[in-house]
Amino acid sequence: MGWAIAIHGGAGVPPSLPPEKRLPREAGLRHCLDVGIAALEARNHPLDVVELVVRELENYPYFNAGKGSVLTTRGTIEMEACIMDGKTMKCGAVSGLSTVVNAVSLARLVMEKTPHIYLAFGGAEAFAREQGVETVEMSHFITPENIERLKQAQEAGRVQIDYTQPDGAVADGDGQTGTVGCVAVDNEGNLAAATSTGGIVNKMVGRIGDTPVIGAGTYANHLCAVSATGMGEAIIRGTVARDVAAVMEFKGISLKEAAAYVVDRAPPGTTGLVAVSSTGEVAMPFNTPGMFRACATEDGYSEISIWESPSK
Amino acid sequence: MGWAIAIHGGAGVPPSLPPEKRLPREAGLRHCLDVGIAALEARNHPLDVVELVVRELENYPYFNAGKGSVLTTRGTIEMEACIMDGKTMKCGAVSGLSTVVNAVSLARLVMEKTPHIYLAFGGAEAFAREQGVETVEMSHFITPENIERLKQAQEAGRVQIDYTQPDGAVADGDGQTGTVGCVAVDNEGNLAAATSTGGIVNKMVGRIGDTPVIGAGTYANHLCAVSATGMGEAIIRGTVARDVAAVMEFKGISLKEAAAYVVDRAPPGTTGLVAVSSTGEVAMPFNTPGMFRACATEDGYSEISIWESPSK
Repeated sequence: MGWAIAIHGGAGVPPSLPPEKRLPREAGLRHCLDVGIAALEARNHPLDVVELVVRELENYPYFNAGKGSVLTTRGTIEMEACIMDGKTMKCGAVSGLSTVVNAVSLARLVMEKTPHIYLAFGGAEAFAREQGVETVEMSHFITPENIERLKQAQEAGRVQIDYTQPDGAVADGDGQTGTVGCVAVDNEGNLAAATSTGGIVNKMVGRIGDTPVIGAGTYANHLCAVSATGMGEAIIRGTVARDVAAVMEFKGISLKEAAAYVVDRAPPGTTGLVAVSSTGEVAMPFNTPGMFRACATEDGYSEISIWESPSK
Repeated sequence: MGWAIAIHGGAGVPPSLPPEKRLPREAGLRHCLDVGIAALEARNHPLDVVELVVRELENYPYFNAGKGSVLTTRGTIEMEACIMDGKTMKCGAVSGLSTVVNAVSLARLVMEKTPHIYLAFGGAEAFAREQGVETVEMSHFITPENIERLKQAQEAGRVQIDYTQPDGAVADGDGQTGTVGCVAVDNEGNLAAATSTGGIVNKMVGRIGDTPVIGAGTYANHLCAVSATGMGEAIIRGTVARDVAAVMEFKGISLKEAAAYVVDRAPPGTTGLVAVSSTGEVAMPFNTPGMFRACATEDGYSEISIWESPSK
C-alpha cells in the first residue's frame, strides 16, 4: 500500500500516429505525471493532486480539454469537468463553459462554495465571474487543428443530414474523444478523481457528455477513484465509473478485475478508463484502439503508453 | 408475471398535510395512475406509457414539474427531465428548459432524433423549437404557490448569506422536492422509466439535479426501471437509480430487497424511489417523512399512499 496516480489524455486514438502527433502528447503525459508524482510525494491531498494535474492537462493544447477543446457544430466551445473526493463523496461538476480557463477548478468551487453539485451554461459562467476565476475570450481555446477537425467532420456529415449519424466521425480519427482525467490515492487511502473535456467534434450546442456525470465519466468512493474516456453516450448508458466501484463492492473483486469487467462489457471501441484503489492498485483498461495514459506508484513503477494493453 | 406501474409525485412531503393540499395531489396520482393502467392494458409500450403518464403529471400544477415547477433564486423556471428504455438502454435527458410544456417529451426526442443523450439550456431550447414541440411563455409555469415558496425560502435564507446553507428550506416543507416520475413494465418484461422536475426552490441559476442524470434520478435496464426523488445532491452522490439495478445484478437479490438496501443506506430524509422489475415486482421505499406515490399491477393490486410504508 502506497500512493498511486493514473492519468489519461483520451481514448480517441487511431491505430497509429505520426511522430509529430505522438511525441508532444507523450511529453505532455510525462510532464503531467511528474507534476502529480511530485504533489503526492509532497503529501498533498489527492483532491488537490487531481485538480492540479487536470489543470496542467487542460492547459496543454494537444488534449481535448481547456485549450485544445473541440468545437460544437456552430464552431463554439462548450467545456465540462467534474471532480470527486472518495472519502466524503463530495463532488462538483460544470458544463457549457466557454470562457473559463480551468473548468476542473470551477467544478471544485461548485463543490466547495455552493449547496449544489452541478452548475451548467449561463449559471456556471455567472458563478465563475462571481468567484473571480480566470476567464478569457472563447477564441483563446480554439486551435487551428480543431477548426480543421470540425471542417472535416462537417464535410463527412454533409451527405448525412440528420442527427442520427455517428458523432462527428473525423477522417484522421485524431483526438475526437480526447478527454483528460486523473485519479490519485495517497498512502492513507484517500482517493480522488477528476475529468475534463471539450466534448466531441461537431456536437450539438447544449450537448452534455459523460465527463460531468457522476458515476459515468467520473466517480470516487472509499474503494476506488475512476475517470473514464471515450464515446460519452456509451459511457453514460454504462454508468462506467460507478460500475467499476459497484462491481468491486457488490461482487467483492479487485480493482483490476472490476475495471476489466466493466470495459469488456462496454460496446467495443467506446470505452477506456483509469482507476486507482484505496490500496494503491492501478488499472487502465480500454476497448478502443488506444488510450493516452500514464501511471506511477510509490514502489517506483511508472508507465506511459498509448496502444498496447497496460502491463499494470 | 404481468404488467406493473408505479408513479411518484415527490418525496418532499411534510409529516402531515391539510386536506386542501393532500386531496388534489391524491386525485392527481389517481388520475395519472389510471391513465397509465389504461395505456398498459391497451398494450402500449412502457416507453410510451411512462412518457404519457409523466406528461400528465407535468401538466398537473400540484406537482413540481412542468406547470407547478419551483423557482430559481432569480424567480425563473429551469425544468429538467429524463427517459430511459430498459431493453435498448437508449435514453434522453434535458435540463434548463424554461418554455417547453412537456420536458419529458423533449427528452424522448433527444433520445430518438439526435446522436446525443443529453441537451441542456440554450441548445435544448433551440432543439425544442426545431422539433416544433409545444412551448409557452415562462410565466405559464409559475404558480402563486411557488412565488410564495421562493419568498419564504429567501426570507429563511436571509440570515444565511452564503451558498453553503441547506437548499432553500421552506417553512411549510410543502413540495420543495416534488419531482414526478413513472416506471412501467409490460407483460413481456419491457421496462421504462421517466422523471421530470422543476428542481428545488431557490436553486442557483444553472443548477442541475439528479433527475436528468442517468443512474441517479432515472435508470432502466433489462432487470428493472427506477425513478428517484428527494434531495438531488444526495441522489447524485448515491447513484441511486443505477445502484438499485447494480445491487440486483451483482448481489443477485430481488427488486424489493435491492431498493430497500439502496434507500436504507442513503442519508436519512433524502431519498425515495419507485421501481418495477421485469417480472412485475413493485418497490416504493423512501427515507423521507413521506412520498406521494401510487402503483398498480395486472393482478388487480392498486395503492395510493403518502406517508405509511408501502405495503407492496
